[in-house]
Amino acid sequence: MKKDLGVKSFLFPCPVAILGTYDEQGSVNVMNMAWGTLIDTNMILCCLTEEHKTCKNLKAGSDLTIAIATKDLVKESDYFGIDSGNTVKDKFARSGLHVVKSQHVNAPVIEEYPLTLECKTHAIRHDEDGNFFVYAEIVNVLADETILNEKGMVDVKKLNAILFSQIDNSYYEVGDIVGKAWNLGLPFRGK
Amino acid sequence: MKKDLGVKSFLFPCPVAILGTYDEQGSVNVMNMAWGTLIDTNMILCCLTEEHKTCKNLKAGSDLTIAIATKDLVKESDYFGIDSGNTVKDKFARSGLHVVKSQHVNAPVIEEYPLTLECKTHAIRHDEDGNFFVYAEIVNVLADETILNEKGMVDVKKLNAILFSQIDNSYYEVGDIVGKAWNLGLPFRGK
Repeated sequence: MKKDLGVKSFLFPCPVAILGTYDEQGSVNVMNMAWGTLIDTNMILCCLTEEHKTCKNLKAGSDLTIAIATKDLVKESDYFGIDSGNTVKDKFARSGLHVVKSQHVNAPVIEEYPLTLECKTHAIRHDEDGNFFVYAEIVNVLADETILNEKGMVDVKKLNAILFSQIDNSYYEVGDIVGKAWNLGLPFRGK
Repeated sequence: MKKDLGVKSFLFPCPVAILGTYDEQGSVNVMNMAWGTLIDTNMILCCLTEEHKTCKNLKAGSDLTIAIATKDLVKESDYFGIDSGNTVKDKFARSGLHVVKSQHVNAPVIEEYPLTLECKTHAIRHDEDGNFFVYAEIVNVLADETILNEKGMVDVKKLNAILFSQIDNSYYEVGDIVGKAWNLGLPFRGK
């Protein structure tokens, strides 16, 4: 039996992406983004409310970093989605985390996150409905050696990322691997 | 120590969203989408290659359903990302799954998926860079009673959804809950 639940925002899962930018004075701002997606192999579309301090920083010329939130940093990551850099001037400092300037883009890299996408601000646009989009072009990915496997690639289990569920407004761990994409379904080809 | 990995599509995680549409003859097509995001509480942006059979069906007037892939259906879900409805005319039939027509939109509901977003085709657009976007307006969410809790809301653990990792092209289970959003970070406010 199926039940109608009405209009619910139940696309699942969402990423927990931590966006880092500089303001015009070089101060760091960070926010927590759940609404974003790859739109090309080197491009992420960020759907943000234009009032964010992040958006003001991007319009003023900052690039951005996108760090993947991890279980170890869930409290800090959640805090970055609670307060606004518009009103809490020391928002990033309150987290106790540390930054260095990216070597590839004009944006801060938060040292404690093990996986960070360094992105150029490719475009800032409204669509025909008034939605505000930031296009983040990935120019490099920076990874802690601690999350790499013997081949030098990211090991998803070592990354220990979290995901966001808009179904119950909660964060979840990533569980066991189920299998390889473009592989598990191959038997249906033979039918 | 951090290491440069170059340009990698490492936004994590991606959803495993199964898009259902009708062609002009009423035949069912399905595809597997990893690149999509909420852009409003009732709107999903789907970033698709325009050549998909799904896009042809949407341009011809179909609405769409977006089912959340689950571990039980990982093989079928993966298959929907392997073959194309442009060339494999019985693609959906090969899965052995079943559909009924949505009561809310002009699109098929796959009976076996426990959570389905019934969506109107709000808009089909190219952006200034040539990216192709389908805007899917959620008009109802349909859930199996088996995944609901005692309050009639979706229980994320019962849903048993999977996620897609573009880091290693693999599907993963959802693990344990870590905590509530807009809550875990509150202690940093007091500092």
